[in-house]
Amino acid sequence: MEQFIALIQSYTALGIGVIIGLGALGACLGLGIMGSKFLESGARQPELIPLLQSRMFLLAGLIDAAFLIGVALAMYFAVANPLLSAVSGH
Amino acid sequence: MEQFIALIQSYTALGIGVIIGLGALGACLGLGIMGSKFLESGARQPELIPLLQSRMFLLAGLIDAAFLIGVALAMYFAVANPLLSAVSGH
Amino acid sequence: MEQFIALIQSYTALGIGVIIGLGALGACLGLGIMGSKFLESGARQPELIPLLQSRMFLLAGLIDAAFLIGVALAMYFAVANPLLSAVSGH
Amino acid sequence: MEQFIALIQSYTALGIGVIIGLGALGACLGLGIMGSKFLESGARQPELIPLLQSRMFLLAGLIDAAFLIGVALAMYFAVANPLLSAVSGH
Amino acid sequence: MEQFIALIQSYTALGIGVIIGLGALGACLGLGIMGSKFLESGARQPELIPLLQSRMFLLAGLIDAAFLIGVALAMYFAVANPLLSAVSGH
Amino acid sequence: MEQFIALIQSYTALGIGVIIGLGALGACLGLGIMGSKFLESGARQPELIPLLQSRMFLLAGLIDAAFLIGVALAMYFAVANPLLSAVSGH
Amino acid sequence: MEQFIALIQSYTALGIGVIIGLGALGACLGLGIMGSKFLESGARQPELIPLLQSRMFLLAGLIDAAFLIGVALAMYFAVANPLLSAVSGH
Amino acid sequence: MEQFIALIQSYTALGIGVIIGLGALGACLGLGIMGSKFLESGARQPELIPLLQSRMFLLAGLIDAAFLIGVALAMYFAVANPLLSAVSGH
Amino acid sequence: MEQFIALIQSYTALGIGVIIGLGALGACLGLGIMGSKFLESGARQPELIPLLQSRMFLLAGLIDAAFLIGVALAMYFAVANPLLSAVSGH
Amino acid sequence: MEQFIALIQSYTALGIGVIIGLGALGACLGLGIMGSKFLESGARQPELIPLLQSRMFLLAGLIDAAFLIGVALAMYFAVANPLLSAVSGH
Amino acid sequence: MEQFIALIQSYTALGIGVIIGLGALGACLGLGIMGSKFLESGARQPELIPLLQSRMFLLAGLIDAAFLIGVALAMYFAVANPLLSAVSGH
Amino acid sequence: MEQFIALIQSYTALGIGVIIGLGALGACLGLGIMGSKFLESGARQPELIPLLQSRMFLLAGLIDAAFLIGVALAMYFAVANPLLSAVSGH
Amino acid sequence: MEQFIALIQSYTALGIGVIIGLGALGACLGLGIMGSKFLESGARQPELIPLLQSRMFLLAGLIDAAFLIGVALAMYFAVANPLLSAVSGH
Amino acid sequence: MEQFIALIQSYTALGIGVIIGLGALGACLGLGIMGSKFLESGARQPELIPLLQSRMFLLAGLIDAAFLIGVALAMYFAVANPLLSAVSGH
Repeated sequence: MEQFIALIQSYTALGIGVIIGLGALGACLGLGIMGSKFLESGARQPELIPLLQSRMFLLAGLIDAAFLIGVALAMYFAVANPLLSAVSGH
Repeated sequence: MEQFIALIQSYTALGIGVIIGLGALGACLGLGIMGSKFLESGARQPELIPLLQSRMFLLAGLIDAAFLIGVALAMYFAVANPLLSAVSGH
Repeated sequence: MEQFIALIQSYTALGIGVIIGLGALGACLGLGIMGSKFLESGARQPELIPLLQSRMFLLAGLIDAAFLIGVALAMYFAVANPLLSAVSGH
Repeated sequence: MEQFIALIQSYTALGIGVIIGLGALGACLGLGIMGSKFLESGARQPELIPLLQSRMFLLAGLIDAAFLIGVALAMYFAVANPLLSAVSGH
Repeated sequence: MEQFIALIQSYTALGIGVIIGLGALGACLGLGIMGSKFLESGARQPELIPLLQSRMFLLAGLIDAAFLIGVALAMYFAVANPLLSAVSGH
Repeated sequence: MEQFIALIQSYTALGIGVIIGLGALGACLGLGIMGSKFLESGARQPELIPLLQSRMFLLAGLIDAAFLIGVALAMYFAVANPLLSAVSGH
Repeated sequence: MEQFIALIQSYTALGIGVIIGLGALGACLGLGIMGSKFLESGARQPELIPLLQSRMFLLAGLIDAAFLIGVALAMYFAVANPLLSAVSGH
Repeated sequence: MEQFIALIQSYTALGIGVIIGLGALGACLGLGIMGSKFLESGARQPELIPLLQSRMFLLAGLIDAAFLIGVALAMYFAVANPLLSAVSGH
Repeated sequence: MEQFIALIQSYTALGIGVIIGLGALGACLGLGIMGSKFLESGARQPELIPLLQSRMFLLAGLIDAAFLIGVALAMYFAVANPLLSAVSGH
Repeated sequence: MEQFIALIQSYTALGIGVIIGLGALGACLGLGIMGSKFLESGARQPELIPLLQSRMFLLAGLIDAAFLIGVALAMYFAVANPLLSAVSGH
Repeated sequence: MEQFIALIQSYTALGIGVIIGLGALGACLGLGIMGSKFLESGARQPELIPLLQSRMFLLAGLIDAAFLIGVALAMYFAVANPLLSAVSGH
Repeated sequence: MEQFIALIQSYTALGIGVIIGLGALGACLGLGIMGSKFLESGARQPELIPLLQSRMFLLAGLIDAAFLIGVALAMYFAVANPLLSAVSGH
Repeated sequence: MEQFIALIQSYTALGIGVIIGLGALGACLGLGIMGSKFLESGARQPELIPLLQSRMFLLAGLIDAAFLIGVALAMYFAVANPLLSAVSGH
Repeated sequence: MEQFIALIQSYTALGIGVIIGLGALGACLGLGIMGSKFLESGARQPELIPLLQSRMFLLAGLIDAAFLIGVALAMYFAVANPLLSAVSGH
């Protein structure tokens, strides 16, 4: 039974790498695109910066949320892989 | 029968990684594109920010919904893989 | 016969991952592109926001429909894989 | 003969994943591109929205049709794989 | 002889997936690009919508034709694979 | 000799999938690009639509011709694979 | 010697698929790009359509020629594979 | 049991490489896009540079946070791989 | 010695497919880009069409030359593979 | 146990190559994009060059930081691979 | 020693395909980009066509030179593979 | 133990190729993008060339630094591979 | 020792193909981009053509130099592979 | 020990191909981008050509330097592979 657990854990390691890697790539690019518009808009109307900044934090939170949901699930797979229950529960 | 369950679980782990990884990439980029237009529009007409913000949340909810549907299904596969029923039900 | 079912289920797991993953990527990007135009249009003519918003929901529904059709079929494959009938029906 | 059927069904599962996955990606992106132009056009001439909306539904139907033809064929392969007749008909 | 038929049918299943998948992707994107120009043109000159719409259907028919030719051939391969005649005709 | 024929037929099935799949992708995109310009031009000068339409059919015929040549050759390979003559003619 | 011929023919089948597939993709896209400019130019100066059309046919012929040279060579490989002479001539 | 641990650790090494590599690529590009807008905005309104700079640091922090979350998790996998607990805990 | 010749011929078949396939793709796209500019220029200054057309043929000849050099070499490899001399000359 | 260590170290070598390679690619492109905007802005307002230059160094530091974090971790894996502790610690 | 020569020749065949294929793709695209600018420039100042044409031939020669150097080397490898000297010279 | 060292060194050779190859690609493109802006800016305000040139060298140094860090580490792996210590130190 | 030399020579053949193929692709595209700007600039200021042409030759020389360095090294590997010295020198 | 050296040398050959190939591609494209801006700038202000040319040589030197560093290291690996010392030094 050991070898079946090892097989599942190995593939899970690859899957976790794909989740966090693609998520970090997307979050960094999404924040970069959104942030460049924030700075551009802020430079045109500096009196609106506090107003825009609170919205920018909302957006950054939304983008990070999508990334962190992936991270949280990846960690859940790492510490308590639910895929193992079908094998080790025997 | 153990080895067949392990085989299915391993491939399911890869499939889950693809679902959450591509979903997070898409959600981050989609939110970044949508958010940059929100900040640009808000900077042009600051009196419309509350009006636009409620719509932006609607859109963010729609984008996150597509991502979270994928996440929910991935977790369903993880904790109770329906693909196993054909084998373990024997 | 067990091993044949396991082989089909493993490949089905990969296929489900491709369906939901690409569908979620497409839905998030499509909603982001469509939503950014909605916010831009709404900021130019704020009096049209209720009118545009109902149309935006129609479009979001159409985009999500394409994604959810893929999800529904993927779940159908997961809980009652019709590809197994050729083998297990023997 | 069992193993030949299993081999064909496994490859068919991969093929179905490619059909529905690429189709959903294309339908979501196509609807997003088309919908963003609909909202932009509707915001410029709001009196034309009912006229444009009926055409938009026609176009959405055409785009979805291409996707649903792929889905229908994929389901046909899933429930009654015609590729099996050459083997199981023996 | 069974195994040779199974080998050919398996590769044919992959080939069918590529044909319908790429075709559906192309048809959805092509219709989306063409439809967005139709809505844009219709919004500029609403009196031309009936005239343009009939042409739009012609174009949609041409795009769908290219997709449906691929689909029809894929189904022909599925129900009566001509590649098998070289083997099963023996 | 059976196995050699099966080997050639399997690879021919893959080759046919590539021919029709890439051809359909190209034809759909090419028609979409060309058709969007036709609608745009027709909306600017509606009196030229009959004139442009006949040319558009010429172009669509040329694009479809490239696709259909590929399809015709693929069917020729399918029903009477000339690559088999070197083996089965022995 | 049979198996060597089968090996060469199988790889030739793949090579033929690449030649015709990429050629059809290129020809469809090239004709679409060129044709969209033809329609745009014809809509601006309708009196030049006969003049431009003859040139457009020249260009379509040149594009198709590149595609058809590939097709002709692919068929030559299919019906009389010159690569076999090194083996079957023994 | 040694070989199962080695298998899991090897795949984990690949997964860590994907996480940090894609994350660094995304962070560098995102910072480059955001920073180029900061310099452009600062050059247009030099009196706003202190104001924009504090916001730029906020954005840089958000982008780096997404990258560093990936890095932190990758190091957690490296020094105390939770995927091993299912095997070595036996 | 037969099997060595077959091995070289098989790889040569793949190489020929890559040469002619990529060459045809490049030639079709290059002619399409160049031809669309020719039609656009000709529509602006119709009196220059004969002048431009002779130059366009020169350019089409240059583009086709690059493609045909590849084709000629591919055929040379096909009918008299110089790579075989090292083996069959023994 | 030697072979398990060698397996982990080999995969770690690949992972390090991916980390440093993608990081250097991202850092060079990010610095190039950011630097081109710095020179453009500096040429428009030469009196702002000292002001912009200090900010540019800040940005370059941030971009390099993301790259160097990846490099530092890669070196840590190289000289004291923490993934080995699970095996060699036995 | 025969099998070593065959191995080197097979890989050389693949390498030759990559050299000529990528070279022809690059030459066709490069000539198409350069030629479209030549026609555009010639249409704006027709009195400069002879002047520009001689330069265009120079550029076409330079582009073709890069392609032909690759072709010449590929043929050198084909007819007198210098990589074989290390083996056959024994 | 010899074979384990050889395995690690082989994978390290691949990793070094990825590091230096991607780094050189990034550095050349980054310098090209940055340098084209320098020449453009210098041509608009020639009196600023000495000022811009010193900054351009700073930027080139920063871009090259990212590349050279990768190169230095690759050479460190080449001459004194720290990954070997876990094996050869036994 | 023969088989080790053959192994190294085979991989060297692939490496040479990558060097010359990518180099020719880059040189053709680079010359095409640079040459199209030369023709455009020459058409705007025909009196500068001799001046620009000498610079264009300088640039073409620089681009070709990068390509020819790769070619020269590839030929050096082909006629006197320095990688063999470690094996054949024994 | 011979076979371990051959293994390392083979992988080193692939790595060298990647280094020089990607480097030449980057250098050619980077020089093409930079050179097209030089010709454009020179055509606008011909009196600045000597000034710009000296800077262009500086930039070309910087781009070539990144490429040549990769080449130099690749040659170092070729003539005196430091990765071999761990094996042959035994």
